Amino acid sequence: MQTTLDLIQQLDVFFNPKSVAVVGASKKINKAGHVVFKNLVENHHRGLYKGELYPINPHEESILGFKCYPSLRRVVGDVELIVIVVPAKAVPAVMEDAAAKGVKAAIIISAGFSEIGNHQLEEQLVKIAQDAGIRVLGPNCLGVFDSYTGIDTLFLPETKILTTGEEIVATPRPMPGHMAVVSQSGAFGAAALDYLAGSQLGVSKFVSFGNRCDVDEADMLLYLGQDEKTHSILLYIEGVGDGRKFLEVAKQVTRHKPIVVLKSGKTQAGARAALSHTGTLAGRDEVYEAAFAQVGIIRARDMEEFFDLGKALALQPPARGGRIAVLTDAGGPGIMAVDEGVARGLKIPELSEETQGKFMKLVEEGKMPPFAAFKNPVDLTGSATSEMFEEGLQILLEDPEVDGVIVVGLHHVPAIMEDFVDRIAKVAQDYQKPVVACDIGKTEMALFVRLRFEKFSIPSYESPEDASRAMSALVRYGKYLQKCGCFDEYIELFYERKRK
Amino acid sequence: MQTTLDLIQQLDVFFNPKSVAVVGASKKINKAGHVVFKNLVENHHRGLYKGELYPINPHEESILGFKCYPSLRRVVGDVELIVIVVPAKAVPAVMEDAAAKGVKAAIIISAGFSEIGNHQLEEQLVKIAQDAGIRVLGPNCLGVFDSYTGIDTLFLPETKILTTGEEIVATPRPMPGHMAVVSQSGAFGAAALDYLAGSQLGVSKFVSFGNRCDVDEADMLLYLGQDEKTHSILLYIEGVGDGRKFLEVAKQVTRHKPIVVLKSGKTQAGARAALSHTGTLAGRDEVYEAAFAQVGIIRARDMEEFFDLGKALALQPPARGGRIAVLTDAGGPGIMAVDEGVARGLKIPELSEETQGKFMKLVEEGKMPPFAAFKNPVDLTGSATSEMFEEGLQILLEDPEVDGVIVVGLHHVPAIMEDFVDRIAKVAQDYQKPVVACDIGKTEMALFVRLRFEKFSIPSYESPEDASRAMSALVRYGKYLQKCGCFDEYIELFYERKRK
Repeated sequence: MQTTLDLIQQLDVFFNPKSVAVVGASKKINKAGHVVFKNLVENHHRGLYKGELYPINPHEESILGFKCYPSLRRVVGDVELIVIVVPAKAVPAVMEDAAAKGVKAAIIISAGFSEIGNHQLEEQLVKIAQDAGIRVLGPNCLGVFDSYTGIDTLFLPETKILTTGEEIVATPRPMPGHMAVVSQSGAFGAAALDYLAGSQLGVSKFVSFGNRCDVDEADMLLYLGQDEKTHSILLYIEGVGDGRKFLEVAKQVTRHKPIVVLKSGKTQAGARAALSHTGTLAGRDEVYEAAFAQVGIIRARDMEEFFDLGKALALQPPARGGRIAVLTDAGGPGIMAVDEGVARGLKIPELSEETQGKFMKLVEEGKMPPFAAFKNPVDLTGSATSEMFEEGLQILLEDPEVDGVIVVGLHHVPAIMEDFVDRIAKVAQDYQKPVVACDIGKTEMALFVRLRFEKFSIPSYESPEDASRAMSALVRYGKYLQKCGCFDEYIELFYERKRK
Repeated sequence: MQTTLDLIQQLDVFFNPKSVAVVGASKKINKAGHVVFKNLVENHHRGLYKGELYPINPHEESILGFKCYPSLRRVVGDVELIVIVVPAKAVPAVMEDAAAKGVKAAIIISAGFSEIGNHQLEEQLVKIAQDAGIRVLGPNCLGVFDSYTGIDTLFLPETKILTTGEEIVATPRPMPGHMAVVSQSGAFGAAALDYLAGSQLGVSKFVSFGNRCDVDEADMLLYLGQDEKTHSILLYIEGVGDGRKFLEVAKQVTRHKPIVVLKSGKTQAGARAALSHTGTLAGRDEVYEAAFAQVGIIRARDMEEFFDLGKALALQPPARGGRIAVLTDAGGPGIMAVDEGVARGLKIPELSEETQGKFMKLVEEGKMPPFAAFKNPVDLTGSATSEMFEEGLQILLEDPEVDGVIVVGLHHVPAIMEDFVDRIAKVAQDYQKPVVACDIGKTEMALFVRLRFEKFSIPSYESPEDASRAMSALVRYGKYLQKCGCFDEYIELFYERKRK
């Protein structure tokens, strides 16, 4: 019987192989077999991918300086992982070669299988793989990107050359980080990398699993659950393959690592579209909704939330309760944060007399504006200074009746300089309570402020409502962990990961 | 009795005065009176503000090269508009001077009136203004920014000098355009300018009205309703002053110009915050919701929607019906667009046999991928080319059973080059049906694609759900216009404005 450890070792070959062969490697720049092989060559040159590398192509002597082999069987040396980019009908023969060669894992990029009704062809390759003990990712997928080991099987080049002759970034690979992305949709997966790279958010591993003829989303969750580089998992699906297995695995993983899911095909029309996209029966949405909640999966309502919540759960601890304070220098946006927070289940209660008293004392000392409001939201008004944000946040985090703080700190206010971010971050790190931030705007200082917050591990958002949604996810996850009795254990683990 | 024409002429002085005096103008760079006066000086030098300009300050001979006057009464020549930046208690005396001088309009930036309980001081200046026939904007507001006439009373400078000595854009002024922004909250107003400038969206007029002791949001709607430069109005409020007047005006305006409202203070906690922010009684949200719908105001659910819907209504015609097609090269994101569209009331029906037949014919001719899906969404798959988007959109827009198209065109797909935007735009302009677009990503090509769409007046969005929400606003507004019997008239006006 297969143990969990066996499975993990098998899946590890997809991300950390000692040797890789690209079957269908090509010299022609427009071919997928060129892009995939070149990714690996470049990461090999950079010293990122440290294993052996073999192009397989009967028509070439060498590709990009690497000796080319006419078939897998002819490679001198072991081959652990193969990446297949030949046409669908040629794939079974490649799998036969792989079986003979003792290959451990295959990523089948090639399309043209069950997704277009060619079930027989897919069953054929599954049979060969099962008999030979080869684990298969795909077919009809982008495969894997691992920012640490340099495995990159995406056939979408990082840049495109426009018709003007200009080269621009089209499908960037994010920097190394701690969010893992798993996507049933290849196109959405590529778009997610673009989104995360552009947001300067790092990724540990990326997997596009396509038709999941063998390895499925549950296997990936299990693997990523024990992956030390991965601190949170973002999963896009249109439907789950094996529901029971998925929920069992998810339940184990969420005890120590957050999972954010974006599941599409929610509506009848969406489900019809999912059926013709990946042949997935999307199922009744209420069933998914309940099942996700039951096993501690945080569900995002839309794409933006997917990334926003993933970031929040990766960077901040969950909240011990739902009582949240809003600290702001902008009355209107503060109210927006309150409205959305309450709509998403947060409590934004009036602060205790003791806490309001601390603020009033600062007013008396001339350290807070006399017209500021201290009930909750705490509105420092347009007279806010960086020091006021620092002192205000400290008072709020000290309050045992406050479980987390949303800072809506608009940089437009005259006296706010960039050090307000540093001051907020410094205070926040002394308390094990979540803090999320918002600054509004799309030009230089807004971009600078938001990025700077995230350098200090405070997730920051473009709108007050986004920040409230992020906090609500931290509250939901905290509530789940407490129900499981593993909140304290998680917090300990969270800060241990941070220290590393 | 005051006529509408009188009111419009009075309010026009705020945006297009022949002469402006800044009372409290200063040489000190940190003073609001410096920033405001400097804005006007610079716009005067650029030839944008063409009128007379007078600094008022008893302690200076001249400011920024302009002869300074000790008081309004001493100015040689007429003064139409004054901008007041002196402390609250000095404002009534300034208003007495203004009355004596025959000033027509006053923008009172100064804070310290009814918003902090100083009702008497506010009543005092209202009385002086009323007796003298001076219209007042504020107090406690940012005032006005007019991108065409160069009036800019915002005391927030465009750039900030960081502690590192670097100068960066903090509160940019957007370029001239056709969206008007009216905000009860000054901070949110400034943030909105930042957001729009960074999104390269143009603004006609910006108004922050603060305590609205005289001119209120209804007056502004009336004025902007007849302003030729303004094609859509974005209004942020926490509550309405005179409800009946507001609804009457809004009902007139929405017949020929869309109004998008973001109203905060929706929840109990939010309403409490609004009360301590602007002293506004937020009122029951259901009442607002119903009233907005009744007069054709499009309500945004959150900040991001506020800008997203404003952009859609400014750039695209409303839809004649709710039957929408989705055209995509990315299965997953296509489903997301469908899910959100349906959730927001769109119909995404299966396309007619005739239309599906047209696609099938292209497949036979080798012009569409054989594995594409044509039911709706139309999924061109990762094999999509720019030509396929062009032909696909044409087929959809030709279909009398399709009222609008959401194009989810991800640039990551290998064969998609930048010309796909041009091709889509070219087809879209031949039909009077709304088209909105989405490309996902945060790096170069995604930014380029989205901006390029908007250069061709196709609003484009970062997520499929955002695009669907935008389309749903175009459908809602179209439905309202049809109910009023003014749909065709609006469409004619819309294209007439575009041609200009």
